Amino acid sequence: MDFHQAPPTLSNTFLSDSNLKDVLKKYVAPDFLSTIEKHLDHVGELACGKWLEWSREAEARPPELTTFDPWGRRIDRIRMSEGWKNLEAAAATEGIVASGYERKFGDRSRVYQAALLYLFHPSSAFVSCPLAMTDGAARAIELYGDDELKKNAFTRLTSRDPSKFWTSGQWMTEKTGGSDVSGTSTIASPSSRPIDGFDWKLDGVKWFTSATTSQMAMLLARPDGAELGSRGLSLFYTELRDGNGALKNIEILRLKDKLGTRALATAELHLRGTPAKLVGSEGGGVRKISSLFNITRVYNSVCATGHFRRALDLAQSYSRVREAFGRRLVDHPLHAATLEHLEDEYAKCLELSFYVAHLLGKDECGTASEDERILLRALTPIVKLFTAKRCMEGVSEVVELFGGAGYVEDTGIPTLLRDAQVFSIWEGTTNVLSLDFLRALEKENAAPILLKKIQNDFASAIEGPAKAPWETMQSILKNAKGDRASLEREARRLAFAVAEIVALGLRT
Amino acid sequence: MDFHQAPPTLSNTFLSDSNLKDVLKKYVAPDFLSTIEKHLDHVGELACGKWLEWSREAEARPPELTTFDPWGRRIDRIRMSEGWKNLEAAAATEGIVASGYERKFGDRSRVYQAALLYLFHPSSAFVSCPLAMTDGAARAIELYGDDELKKNAFTRLTSRDPSKFWTSGQWMTEKTGGSDVSGTSTIASPSSRPIDGFDWKLDGVKWFTSATTSQMAMLLARPDGAELGSRGLSLFYTELRDGNGALKNIEILRLKDKLGTRALATAELHLRGTPAKLVGSEGGGVRKISSLFNITRVYNSVCATGHFRRALDLAQSYSRVREAFGRRLVDHPLHAATLEHLEDEYAKCLELSFYVAHLLGKDECGTASEDERILLRALTPIVKLFTAKRCMEGVSEVVELFGGAGYVEDTGIPTLLRDAQVFSIWEGTTNVLSLDFLRALEKENAAPILLKKIQNDFASAIEGPAKAPWETMQSILKNAKGDRASLEREARRLAFAVAEIVALGLRT
Amino acid sequence: MDFHQAPPTLSNTFLSDSNLKDVLKKYVAPDFLSTIEKHLDHVGELACGKWLEWSREAEARPPELTTFDPWGRRIDRIRMSEGWKNLEAAAATEGIVASGYERKFGDRSRVYQAALLYLFHPSSAFVSCPLAMTDGAARAIELYGDDELKKNAFTRLTSRDPSKFWTSGQWMTEKTGGSDVSGTSTIASPSSRPIDGFDWKLDGVKWFTSATTSQMAMLLARPDGAELGSRGLSLFYTELRDGNGALKNIEILRLKDKLGTRALATAELHLRGTPAKLVGSEGGGVRKISSLFNITRVYNSVCATGHFRRALDLAQSYSRVREAFGRRLVDHPLHAATLEHLEDEYAKCLELSFYVAHLLGKDECGTASEDERILLRALTPIVKLFTAKRCMEGVSEVVELFGGAGYVEDTGIPTLLRDAQVFSIWEGTTNVLSLDFLRALEKENAAPILLKKIQNDFASAIEGPAKAPWETMQSILKNAKGDRASLEREARRLAFAVAEIVALGLRT
Amino acid sequence: MDFHQAPPTLSNTFLSDSNLKDVLKKYVAPDFLSTIEKHLDHVGELACGKWLEWSREAEARPPELTTFDPWGRRIDRIRMSEGWKNLEAAAATEGIVASGYERKFGDRSRVYQAALLYLFHPSSAFVSCPLAMTDGAARAIELYGDDELKKNAFTRLTSRDPSKFWTSGQWMTEKTGGSDVSGTSTIASPSSRPIDGFDWKLDGVKWFTSATTSQMAMLLARPDGAELGSRGLSLFYTELRDGNGALKNIEILRLKDKLGTRALATAELHLRGTPAKLVGSEGGGVRKISSLFNITRVYNSVCATGHFRRALDLAQSYSRVREAFGRRLVDHPLHAATLEHLEDEYAKCLELSFYVAHLLGKDECGTASEDERILLRALTPIVKLFTAKRCMEGVSEVVELFGGAGYVEDTGIPTLLRDAQVFSIWEGTTNVLSLDFLRALEKENAAPILLKKIQNDFASAIEGPAKAPWETMQSILKNAKGDRASLEREARRLAFAVAEIVALGLRT
Repeated sequence: MDFHQAPPTLSNTFLSDSNLKDVLKKYVAPDFLSTIEKHLDHVGELACGKWLEWSREAEARPPELTTFDPWGRRIDRIRMSEGWKNLEAAAATEGIVASGYERKFGDRSRVYQAALLYLFHPSSAFVSCPLAMTDGAARAIELYGDDELKKNAFTRLTSRDPSKFWTSGQWMTEKTGGSDVSGTSTIASPSSRPIDGFDWKLDGVKWFTSATTSQMAMLLARPDGAELGSRGLSLFYTELRDGNGALKNIEILRLKDKLGTRALATAELHLRGTPAKLVGSEGGGVRKISSLFNITRVYNSVCATGHFRRALDLAQSYSRVREAFGRRLVDHPLHAATLEHLEDEYAKCLELSFYVAHLLGKDECGTASEDERILLRALTPIVKLFTAKRCMEGVSEVVELFGGAGYVEDTGIPTLLRDAQVFSIWEGTTNVLSLDFLRALEKENAAPILLKKIQNDFASAIEGPAKAPWETMQSILKNAKGDRASLEREARRLAFAVAEIVALGLRT
Repeated sequence: MDFHQAPPTLSNTFLSDSNLKDVLKKYVAPDFLSTIEKHLDHVGELACGKWLEWSREAEARPPELTTFDPWGRRIDRIRMSEGWKNLEAAAATEGIVASGYERKFGDRSRVYQAALLYLFHPSSAFVSCPLAMTDGAARAIELYGDDELKKNAFTRLTSRDPSKFWTSGQWMTEKTGGSDVSGTSTIASPSSRPIDGFDWKLDGVKWFTSATTSQMAMLLARPDGAELGSRGLSLFYTELRDGNGALKNIEILRLKDKLGTRALATAELHLRGTPAKLVGSEGGGVRKISSLFNITRVYNSVCATGHFRRALDLAQSYSRVREAFGRRLVDHPLHAATLEHLEDEYAKCLELSFYVAHLLGKDECGTASEDERILLRALTPIVKLFTAKRCMEGVSEVVELFGGAGYVEDTGIPTLLRDAQVFSIWEGTTNVLSLDFLRALEKENAAPILLKKIQNDFASAIEGPAKAPWETMQSILKNAKGDRASLEREARRLAFAVAEIVALGLRT
Repeated sequence: MDFHQAPPTLSNTFLSDSNLKDVLKKYVAPDFLSTIEKHLDHVGELACGKWLEWSREAEARPPELTTFDPWGRRIDRIRMSEGWKNLEAAAATEGIVASGYERKFGDRSRVYQAALLYLFHPSSAFVSCPLAMTDGAARAIELYGDDELKKNAFTRLTSRDPSKFWTSGQWMTEKTGGSDVSGTSTIASPSSRPIDGFDWKLDGVKWFTSATTSQMAMLLARPDGAELGSRGLSLFYTELRDGNGALKNIEILRLKDKLGTRALATAELHLRGTPAKLVGSEGGGVRKISSLFNITRVYNSVCATGHFRRALDLAQSYSRVREAFGRRLVDHPLHAATLEHLEDEYAKCLELSFYVAHLLGKDECGTASEDERILLRALTPIVKLFTAKRCMEGVSEVVELFGGAGYVEDTGIPTLLRDAQVFSIWEGTTNVLSLDFLRALEKENAAPILLKKIQNDFASAIEGPAKAPWETMQSILKNAKGDRASLEREARRLAFAVAEIVALGLRT
Repeated sequence: MDFHQAPPTLSNTFLSDSNLKDVLKKYVAPDFLSTIEKHLDHVGELACGKWLEWSREAEARPPELTTFDPWGRRIDRIRMSEGWKNLEAAAATEGIVASGYERKFGDRSRVYQAALLYLFHPSSAFVSCPLAMTDGAARAIELYGDDELKKNAFTRLTSRDPSKFWTSGQWMTEKTGGSDVSGTSTIASPSSRPIDGFDWKLDGVKWFTSATTSQMAMLLARPDGAELGSRGLSLFYTELRDGNGALKNIEILRLKDKLGTRALATAELHLRGTPAKLVGSEGGGVRKISSLFNITRVYNSVCATGHFRRALDLAQSYSRVREAFGRRLVDHPLHAATLEHLEDEYAKCLELSFYVAHLLGKDECGTASEDERILLRALTPIVKLFTAKRCMEGVSEVVELFGGAGYVEDTGIPTLLRDAQVFSIWEGTTNVLSLDFLRALEKENAAPILLKKIQNDFASAIEGPAKAPWETMQSILKNAKGDRASLEREARRLAFAVAEIVALGLRT
């Protein structure tokens, strides 16, 4: 009657799992490696120590919205937990965003950053989400912003000082469409009384905004009178709050009651004359925002991989302390085989996500070849879709490996599942990204470059473990001469095949 | 600014989807068919009408436990929603359990019942769960109970009169093990003062009891002094409440806070001298309970299939009303292809689950051949594991097809996912059932019978669509001469291969 | 260790407490009495039986507002508990409002109704609140409504058929003022497209509306262009919902999170072109509404008295089952003295509230003398303020008599206190009503009539138990020749003095 | 439509209200005064600044109990808000308890402490409650503890260092009785294996324990075999948690769901072999604990007075910003008169509570005369009962002065009322204390001393404002020769009369 199951335990992932170290060695020169590893060791400790506690507190105390004050004034105030605030500050201190812009390790800085993010994310209660948008906003400003934005906003977004650090929202989704922004109905009109250079005002409803507690946001809107469709959109910059912390002509219609990412304040916003500035000149909004999407997709891939690792760490630990039918779970051959299978899938995610991070770093530092640039463009969507799907499948399997305990919220396992489902939804669903990959193959001439890369660098893979996906890929491309609709129907199988080939090629 | 997405709608699944009708035609003689179809049409209407409302209310108002009264008396009272109570009554009225025992349609009664359950489940807020245990308990009493149990409990369990109808709990799981009941530490001692023939009393903790609001329960306990391990266990019968509705020497330690099935009161129970009776003679508990498991696994398969159908109905409906990139979702080739793929997977689930229901009915009515009996034994676990996994994968895909809306609780889509995860956990996880299948192949000589069945009846399938799984099956069985551990490692792949073969065989 | 306090119990108040019977005998002719007593006996049973259960359920499941549907449409839907709905239906069936208009017992019908309400209220979860407004609206329509309103709305408000019965809201309070409606900023404009005769549309915010779930409402608004202040106001009639149950151009800004009356849906409403009709001709809104206030104040007095009785019943019962210092509480002289004191205060409330109900009935049936009409006008405010204050003080004392148990929510005692506080707030606070009484004395020449009444009918009281308040009254009136401000400062003392005199006079 | 009521504001009560300064001047020598006032000014700022914020956070996030860990282990963990923890630390830093034992201002230290507490309490979310018990425990140890307790526990209880500071619980109430501890059924048995000198173990249920998060507790228990009734009780000391923060053989049955004091973790505890030590020798438990009660009653009086002041501050502020009927509330004569009346009542509370604090300080420092000691004994209960009742009445009136806003939780006004009700319940109800006062008059010969004090020092009061209570007092005492029961019936009137006389005497 007094039997109590020993719980699974978490240790420093950077030390307990060698996969990350192995991948780093591929990309980082030995002289940088020890500096980086020291920091990662420290971050790994935090992630199984106080970050973990903070993230649990943030989960337990989700954001609360107060729409009115007692006297009927609209205030739209969101209260975040202490845990969330602490994690945001820690993200600044450890340079999760900053490391990508300080470029201390040259074109490997994005690899270093990916490692930080990979360790941070699973204990971050999805503070990683605003960080992704923050990084994307920093990049957009770096590329398109004027001096003022670079001096102020950019400096804050890439600061390591929690008191100066800003996160940024990215408000794209409207009710008319998720990934399809063409129907954007937010209207920008010139302001009759610009204050501090905010010479536009915005009116519209943003339907899914995941960082409503940020200090600034990047968003798409259609200047009054501009043409319909995507081409009429411009990229705008806004700061959310005035000196007293009150929202500037923004109403929060409600917080989303989501399946997961519950510590994260996702809201529906009504912009009612919100002051804004153009980022760059008018027009080209979608093009500008796409620089941002590339970054958030890489973040998504790295976070999904870290998330998958967290689930595996727990499953591994549990399999060593839980007994059934007279043996530890890990000593049951089928249980062990199941875990090994999941490790393989995870390892593919790790390879893929760090490979695109590596390409991104080279691209940004100007050391990427033309082929590498195109590979980055083509692989980013499929790495995102592959890691998201594998993470969800893997976590669902982990839930099952815990049996009934995996289904009970206080073990924390259900949170892993509820959260995992988000990776395949935001930043483009599997289907949307599969078609995006198709576009890259076609429009940016990525197909021959990708084939060359595979045949040159992954030859032993496609003759070995990657044989089946390689055959799939070839057969789809061969039949691709047919009608466009048939090709689209195959886009997803193609994307997964290529992801498998690249992942296995990188591992081999 | 005033765009509002049209929501997906639900209609009568029995009419809108022809798959069920097609499957029924296979098993049910034409003269029965019209009677059955008329009832199913009626039940289908209820399921998209008031049952749906009730199930939503039951979800919105989950069970609440009050442990103490204001004056400190332990009362352990669970309050269920009105929706839940109404659904339980409706289940009685429509004969969800009763239909399996009235046997109005002879050895096809289980097929009829499966169709009822398939339509009922997705609007039942998991009242289907206690029904499964109720049916299992009825079967166990039919097989092993004495006259008194048959007269009273059995009559109530199979009643169509809501005022007489009882549901039954089935309390197996303890903290030491989920599927592994060998460590059961609940002790049964002879009662010094038996009341109404309850001549044992039980002491122990039951860790996962999903029908705590039932009037009776079947459970395993170890008579004081009986041998350790599974062999020392006996099957007991208890009635939970006295005439005033107070629990009889049972404390509810807490309600489980679960990922899904939130309308269902799952509890941890402390038995403290709970009065009980033996079912049959002492010993043989595991054997007796296994008759019950067969039934709950068939229920699980049917419910998972119905759940999958519900998700697909919603995804289909949404794909016709939602537009993106200038077209309805359904007009995007890749979206359409994804839906078709899910329809295929669902159709396999439907074939498999109705096939085992059919075998079960024949077995119970004595019209099954020896081969069919063994097929029932061998296929029950793999049909359960296959339908559970496919349902979860399918629902996760459906979530994604809804985009952001799939991740927001008030659309109801997240509930589908949270609930779907349960099917692969309760009644044996994928791994546990894979090994159970292996045991059936080996110990009950099911392998040659299964091979014969496949080669005779599914010949065209294994030469066509089922070629790959057939090769997998053969290769695993060929290598099976090796060590046991290697075979176990392959048990899961084997199970899925066989399930695929049978499903595709049945469809062809 | 196993001591458990016996809880207090509730029995049929009509039988257990003779006060009500005694009061009825004063006002009701013997031939009516037995009919009425039979009904009250029945109602008393319900109030300690299923009404009590329903009211508890209604308390446990307070109203929930859903502002948006999953797709972003504004729906503003309030979900009420089953208990609440059942109580509303029961109120219709028992004729709580209807009895006042059927006038089956002639000018004693309001006394009969008061007795029903007195028994109903404490088990009504404050369904009594919409009933008060419903009754007030019926009266306003009877006095000022056109034929159409009398035929439709009035018939529904006074129906005993739950399927036809309507309740009415009464929306006065705006943010600018509670009792002071002069600043009403809701504007009525002629409708360009009247539907079904609703030829005005209203725009404004109503800050405290306690029956948002009603089907209709009476409210004050200022026709566009009408003069400022109270004189520019008109009384309007609106029906809240269209055929689909959707609010007609009304947004519910939020439900109030109140100290008590938690089962009651009190809301802030934003009228945005709500269709409405004038009640009578334009203007005179405040005068018309005041007929309504008289009724709601009488309701308030009767409910406060019933509420006080409920608290006393519980305290009496507890004092007989709880022991301390070796004796039952009731056997402690000080405890007994405290209860007796509370009984005295309660008895005053009962006398006063039935006296004004009696005057009201006579007034409505045209059997009141001129003096009685003026007494009704003068006494209504002070009976309301007196009963409200005494109820709150009494209940606070009862909380204390329960000791710690009185402070713990699940005993139900704190609810009594939280609810009791409302009586002195709505329908005019103590100070507002004291000044209203002063106005009655001055403007309606009530002073001499009141003095005459006291000296004629309550002579023995003012020489006996009411000596002190009588002296107070005289001294205040004597000094009243001084400045108005000094008199106002004394208005409250005066009001209580008069209430004491009348109460004691009636008892003697 | 856009009118928004200006909210009431809070400023530094020490500066805004001169009453406290005036009272301090009476008791504190001028040379001490400026030191004390400087500190009080500082504390007053905190109380309208960050303490206020913390107390709001503590209210918004009430304690949460987790009974089991995910794996079924009983853990009984209470999570307190950050606000609560911060306030406890602040209480240490500012020396709320310590100031009473450092005795820096000699026999005026209790007056100084009372001033601190008076300012601290209304922004303390009832951290003042554990402080009262902490102070009481310190006093009990000072009087009866051995060297070890004095060295360790006492030092911690009176520390200003938050990292060393301990609070103490005081666990008296059992289900059998509130104030009546004679039925205490907690049994103490000698421990067979004493650890660290804890040589007793306790078994029983404590029904109302308001400081379950404290590190230690003082409690009554009956040594096994000791006589029944109060005389068999001894006072014990226990430390609640082991080195890992786990409770030592204490189960928390539940947290009380209280009307008010919601930030405070009040629990029902089951002691199951809890290790304890005797305080002093066996026996005399009730006598020892009474030293503790004197202190908690003084705390209660001071806190109730501070609470009353807070309500008045808000009402005053509101009356200056709210307009009705064309004038600010404060400019309405009756509103102004109502506020003045409340100020008078509050001022009596302030006089009384500081007077007993002053007597307490003298008693503890040995500077009290015999008469003063007896006055302290006699007045402590009636000051407590008087301040508690007046506070509740006053706050209820303040709620009403706010109108509807006073009834809505987010204004914070309802909290004041819900909290106020506690003062007359804990530490003895009005009736219990009235009888205690009677006992003091009789058994401790307090009557003549009290009469002498009144006639000597309050002569002008009893001829002026206190004439009426003085006559009441005399008449009751005169008739007191009669039977005891009659006297008891008058005990409460007597208590209030004496309190009025003393209060008015002190003011004059």
